[in-house]
Amino acid sequence: MDIIKAAENARKASIIMGGADAGLKNHALEKIANALLENEFKIIEANTADLERSKQENLASPLLKRLKFDHDKITDVCAGIKSLINLEDPVGRILAETELDDGLLLKKVSCPIGVIGVIFESRPDALVQISTLCLKSGNSLLLKGGREARETNRALAEIINEASIKAGMPKGWIHLCETREDVNAMLKLDEYIDLIIPRGSNEFVRYIMDNSRIPVLGHADGICHLYIDKDADIGMGIEIAVDSKTQYVAVCNALETLLVHRDIAKEYLPLLKKEMEKKNVVLVGCSETRKVIDAAPADEMDWKTEYLDYKLSVKIVDDIRSAIDHINTYGSGHTDSIVTGNRENAELFMSLVDSGNVFWNCSTRFSDGFRYGFGAEVGIGTGKIHARGPVGLEGLVIYKYKLYGQGHIVADYSEKKKTFKHRRIQ
Amino acid sequence: MDIIKAAENARKASIIMGGADAGLKNHALEKIANALLENEFKIIEANTADLERSKQENLASPLLKRLKFDHDKITDVCAGIKSLINLEDPVGRILAETELDDGLLLKKVSCPIGVIGVIFESRPDALVQISTLCLKSGNSLLLKGGREARETNRALAEIINEASIKAGMPKGWIHLCETREDVNAMLKLDEYIDLIIPRGSNEFVRYIMDNSRIPVLGHADGICHLYIDKDADIGMGIEIAVDSKTQYVAVCNALETLLVHRDIAKEYLPLLKKEMEKKNVVLVGCSETRKVIDAAPADEMDWKTEYLDYKLSVKIVDDIRSAIDHINTYGSGHTDSIVTGNRENAELFMSLVDSGNVFWNCSTRFSDGFRYGFGAEVGIGTGKIHARGPVGLEGLVIYKYKLYGQGHIVADYSEKKKTFKHRRIQ
Repeated sequence: MDIIKAAENARKASIIMGGADAGLKNHALEKIANALLENEFKIIEANTADLERSKQENLASPLLKRLKFDHDKITDVCAGIKSLINLEDPVGRILAETELDDGLLLKKVSCPIGVIGVIFESRPDALVQISTLCLKSGNSLLLKGGREARETNRALAEIINEASIKAGMPKGWIHLCETREDVNAMLKLDEYIDLIIPRGSNEFVRYIMDNSRIPVLGHADGICHLYIDKDADIGMGIEIAVDSKTQYVAVCNALETLLVHRDIAKEYLPLLKKEMEKKNVVLVGCSETRKVIDAAPADEMDWKTEYLDYKLSVKIVDDIRSAIDHINTYGSGHTDSIVTGNRENAELFMSLVDSGNVFWNCSTRFSDGFRYGFGAEVGIGTGKIHARGPVGLEGLVIYKYKLYGQGHIVADYSEKKKTFKHRRIQ
Repeated sequence: MDIIKAAENARKASIIMGGADAGLKNHALEKIANALLENEFKIIEANTADLERSKQENLASPLLKRLKFDHDKITDVCAGIKSLINLEDPVGRILAETELDDGLLLKKVSCPIGVIGVIFESRPDALVQISTLCLKSGNSLLLKGGREARETNRALAEIINEASIKAGMPKGWIHLCETREDVNAMLKLDEYIDLIIPRGSNEFVRYIMDNSRIPVLGHADGICHLYIDKDADIGMGIEIAVDSKTQYVAVCNALETLLVHRDIAKEYLPLLKKEMEKKNVVLVGCSETRKVIDAAPADEMDWKTEYLDYKLSVKIVDDIRSAIDHINTYGSGHTDSIVTGNRENAELFMSLVDSGNVFWNCSTRFSDGFRYGFGAEVGIGTGKIHARGPVGLEGLVIYKYKLYGQGHIVADYSEKKKTFKHRRIQ
């Protein structure tokens, strides 16, 4: 189908989705979960085709692993849908209520954003997650998945589309795009698409920002820091560093740069080196660090680099202010953590570090929608407007103002016949 | 000063602003109000120079009126600052709190956005409003005003800068740009500027969206509708139409298109015509309308046009669904109102019309930050993310997640030694 036509249909459907009540949406979600279970064979068949083709094309093994969509994955995504059903409807919540004057009532009410464009990578479970999140929040969706998962995505989108429409969702609320040209066309459709969520590389996110008027929710780099303060518990500082760096190196909330207070460096760094060596992590350090431990020299580029690998840059700082400055200069606004026994320093760090997630005495790896208890995650935002950090359902809604009058006109107020009362109700 | 240097300074200052408490910010606001009153003579002198130059340059008289900044205006803006002081601090509010596990506490806390770029038109009071709103919300500000108000803006910015820095705000938190080149340079500084608020023409807002990666908060058109339903009180329908159209024609929340239900058109339209003629409003209508009243023909372009003038397009519709469709097709997402005695229809209209402000039995002219009781207004947004409708202080803040741990690491959870509890506290 023509992408413009699909976007037009999605926009029309979004109006109906916005009026759908929680019961209807949850009913549709249940039907989708059932349909996925019933069509397990069809899904696995499609996925097998994708896997075989990708093997022939020599897709790297971690990517093959992400691509695989088997019985367990189907069970997982269905469990995810069940927990989504149990979440409160994000639409129709009264966020504020003011009586502007007698009989003139203003309500700020949450509502869907409208049409969301999502471009995601090889994991086919993302398709199920994203589409059910959009349904729950009453948004239409234009989706583009990775080429490797083409058959799996087609099968999943077809099952979701059919089951949800049977359950009463409007035709056209979900549309799967398949070509790169479709993505480029999407970027121009600011008349129909309200928000783009790119889940891909840094360069890809920037490309989208540079080529579209449509707002973008996403993250570029994840250059996360851990600062070991003067008053840190050394053991805790080691354990958190190891977890932050090595628990899963290829993710955006993994540690990339460790900062350590000058006064504790001599005690801390040798222990760090020992533990990191056990995990095969290569250390690079500033000149001060290299006076304490053996490490290759780190340069300016290291502070700016998201390794996503078994490599860690280390810097000795004079005090907490220098640590904060370093993070605000080289960080990416993703996740930064302090280890300290000093509450005042912890609060200062969390107040002044300009990142979506600021932690005290815990691993950077906690910044994640599931760990935060959101039930599901749309993505992670490092921008500073709308939604930041791990973004759940609340990132897919906005609000509208509903004003209930009884024939009220503005002339009465500008001519001072009446005055506003602005009684805050909620 | 070089704009890049100014933006860098603003970014540095924004970190300090973010940590400033309510007492310090309110103290600075008080000092600003006092300084404006003390420097009345200097401000009026600068404004007189602007007025004289603009008269010589034949600036249109409504614009001259907007440019004028006299004793009354100074008193007004100072009263505005006083009411801003009384508003709750938008920063540091706990928006949500969850205990992820024993001793692992997640807080979602409101914080400033960072650096705001604002480009505004001739009214110098906007400079005072915007800068004090930014100060209250802890944001740094790069400002660019209209050329006509150059001297007034310089005087105001200087007074605000000096008074606030004396009161403890960080140097560089506010910077006035003066050239068009500065604005173009600003658009490239996504590294330093987090949000741009353009207050200008439709074309100008689009130009900015097309030429910057920085998110934009603003509105393009204001094509507002009034729909007179079958069950409308005719007198109320006339009064609201007249107020919406004529109370102030040159503003974005003024009525541009009136839709009327077929069954009530013969009764309503002749009365409408009579009242609109009294106000010198020219009517253009669809072919059905022209069978009922005398009016020039309206074409497709009329439905898409923001007249900002004594002109109104009129269309007869078959039912409320057609009215909603028309608005969602031709509207601009600003403000749309229904007049009806039928509550169900009113709720349907307010649910399905996809605009920031949806009204029942009242004038479109109510959509305004002051009338809504926000105390102050940053602007009006017709986008669908972050902030919509009249935007007050809450549009200048975002949030960060603070996670308080006691040495917690993710490995314990992935290895199932521990499980999350996700106890919602707030």
